[in-house]
Amino acid sequence: MNPTVVIVGAGFGGLRVARALRRSPVQVILLDRNNYHLFQPLLYQVATAGLEPEQIAKPVRAILRGQQNFDFRMAEVTGADLAARRLETSAGPIPYDYLVLAPGGETNFFGLDAVARHGLGLKDIGDAVSIRNHVLTCFEQAMLEPDPERRRARLTFVVVGGGPTGVEMAGALSELIQLVLVKDYPRLNIKDVRVLLLEATDRLLGTMPERLREAAGRTLWRKHIEVRFGATVADFDGVRVRLKSGEIVPAHTVIWAAGVKAATLNTRLGLPAGRQGRIVVEPTLQVPDRPEVYVVGDAAYLEVDGAPLPMVAPVALQMAQTVARNIARATRGAPPEPFRYRDPGTLATIGRNAAVAHLYGLQFTGFPAWVMWLVVHIIQLIGFRNKLFVLLNWAWDYFFYERAVRLITRD
Amino acid sequence: MNPTVVIVGAGFGGLRVARALRRSPVQVILLDRNNYHLFQPLLYQVATAGLEPEQIAKPVRAILRGQQNFDFRMAEVTGADLAARRLETSAGPIPYDYLVLAPGGETNFFGLDAVARHGLGLKDIGDAVSIRNHVLTCFEQAMLEPDPERRRARLTFVVVGGGPTGVEMAGALSELIQLVLVKDYPRLNIKDVRVLLLEATDRLLGTMPERLREAAGRTLWRKHIEVRFGATVADFDGVRVRLKSGEIVPAHTVIWAAGVKAATLNTRLGLPAGRQGRIVVEPTLQVPDRPEVYVVGDAAYLEVDGAPLPMVAPVALQMAQTVARNIARATRGAPPEPFRYRDPGTLATIGRNAAVAHLYGLQFTGFPAWVMWLVVHIIQLIGFRNKLFVLLNWAWDYFFYERAVRLITRD
Repeated sequence: MNPTVVIVGAGFGGLRVARALRRSPVQVILLDRNNYHLFQPLLYQVATAGLEPEQIAKPVRAILRGQQNFDFRMAEVTGADLAARRLETSAGPIPYDYLVLAPGGETNFFGLDAVARHGLGLKDIGDAVSIRNHVLTCFEQAMLEPDPERRRARLTFVVVGGGPTGVEMAGALSELIQLVLVKDYPRLNIKDVRVLLLEATDRLLGTMPERLREAAGRTLWRKHIEVRFGATVADFDGVRVRLKSGEIVPAHTVIWAAGVKAATLNTRLGLPAGRQGRIVVEPTLQVPDRPEVYVVGDAAYLEVDGAPLPMVAPVALQMAQTVARNIARATRGAPPEPFRYRDPGTLATIGRNAAVAHLYGLQFTGFPAWVMWLVVHIIQLIGFRNKLFVLLNWAWDYFFYERAVRLITRD
Repeated sequence: MNPTVVIVGAGFGGLRVARALRRSPVQVILLDRNNYHLFQPLLYQVATAGLEPEQIAKPVRAILRGQQNFDFRMAEVTGADLAARRLETSAGPIPYDYLVLAPGGETNFFGLDAVARHGLGLKDIGDAVSIRNHVLTCFEQAMLEPDPERRRARLTFVVVGGGPTGVEMAGALSELIQLVLVKDYPRLNIKDVRVLLLEATDRLLGTMPERLREAAGRTLWRKHIEVRFGATVADFDGVRVRLKSGEIVPAHTVIWAAGVKAATLNTRLGLPAGRQGRIVVEPTLQVPDRPEVYVVGDAAYLEVDGAPLPMVAPVALQMAQTVARNIARATRGAPPEPFRYRDPGTLATIGRNAAVAHLYGLQFTGFPAWVMWLVVHIIQLIGFRNKLFVLLNWAWDYFFYERAVRLITRD
């Protein structure tokens, strides 16, 4: 019988490992607590009423329907006996010959419990729909609020974190308000609305070249987003944000895009965690002393040139290729190869016709960068149907200045 | 100042009243606890993973954006002082000159508390998504269940009620399973799956002519649906359905399409309720002794030729026209006119190329009826974007034998 490869997580990394092993002499079992793969880079568009959640998700069984050596289990990992090569799950124990851990990341509130309780993260469909519901509800409630102070607090939206997610979120939120909601609320005074983007350091999009960072800053300014540098959130009680400087910002909304940590799988497996809860791996992506256990994506801690690899999709996808190749090599007795990361660069869109792109050393801004962003995301989105529906949605919103999914659904 | 018309409910009836008053010298305030209008006739397609909820809903503010004399409040009615002409709501008191009650209907479990607790209704987006999640989860769990008895119970789906909703639900559910899920679960034994349709009387689609009822029965049989006549549910504990006859059907799923009652608004308003919790109205749709209060749709109890009007969309839409006209007449001192119902007939689809239609006295079955069903529903769906996306979805599913929205989202 062929050896069994158990993969935990159906994100970019886990799915890619499963696909890359389709012709290898192994049996693949993929586990996820959800029955779908989610295209996280577009989550912020679900949060800002531009896309429907179903358009950026696809059932795992549908994606890998044709693959003979593949099986899916909707289950959560509860523990493991690594010595006995057995995973404990909500669907019972699953023995493996090779184990691939690709659990992805989750929002890191850095121990700020109050912010975690009242603020909004952006890592899964539930998060995105919660943000959409919350933002739209703030507008509905603001229309009923006679007190101007309290009305402004309901219409103040604080986005924390100046990386690509925070920048994209702030840009999309501002466009939703300035282009669409103003039409829905003719009695709204747009001067009552504020979108703040807080960044702890002195720069947005820290990994990008200066020219692109400045272009991004100018675009945010044109979109009426107040960017604050050196601003760190200390507390949030649901109606007031307290900054470390002591300043109080009355606001009902804090969207947290300031940090990611590895999903808390390692503790359940008894594996030692490095920084951000990530599992330290060998250059071959194997766990030290457990050559049959591999880690892929956000959960893997590997330093390259003295710095840890970032928690982004390209790292996960490339790691997945290496892990699949190393497992295939192991089945024929060949030694594993080390992982080499080729950084494709970074892209961030800030709204209509505006983006910054740093790809393979080249820099783009404005409309050309926006077109590149669009093409890259449509290509990577899984499934022709999703591509078609997302493109149609974008075209519709672009030409009619719309965001159609302005529904407040009950939680 | 123009008189104020307050409308409760943004369903077919309430929305139509608001629109029909657009040129009248009145100020219209529409209340709903949701911020969207929902096209309920297609809810069963959301429940069977065919459509995305966002495609059959549209924000009320977006629908009535251009109407000058219109305002929307997202709020719930908590009470009223009818003598003082004031509605009490979660958004504070709202005085009115004319009040239109169009709260719609809700699932009627006829006092079967256990069924209400464990069974699934189908009246709003939350219901539909719950059915979708539940059905798909049953399949995931069945794949992990080694015991054949228990596996079959997880794969037994009981639809209660042989009216249009029950017939459409059973047909769509059976197609989801027979055409789509068999491909997702290659290890599934299709003989383990059962779809039962229980009807208390001796006929399906009771209001339709015999020829159409028989055509519907044959189609359901071809789709492997077990239709049981004279079958009434007495109890359901989540794993076993007990019929009144004493028979036990092991099943994890009961979808309840057996009854509707008026939304429980009347008790909060101190209005006397008739059968099914509906408010007895004059032929002019006014509440007796309260000529400034009108009732529209499911909540209105009015007998025509000795039988109460059914709780269906055409009644609500036509009542809305009459109420809008009567309010316009009242503003210029003219007496109200009585409501006259013109029954357009009934349509029910049972799946691909199969439907029955009884329209203006004419009878259609099979493919022609199916095309009529499709055209009627697309025309009535509000908003060009929704029409486009639903049509695209239907075309996709039709040609590729697909149901794309097979996501289990967390509650």
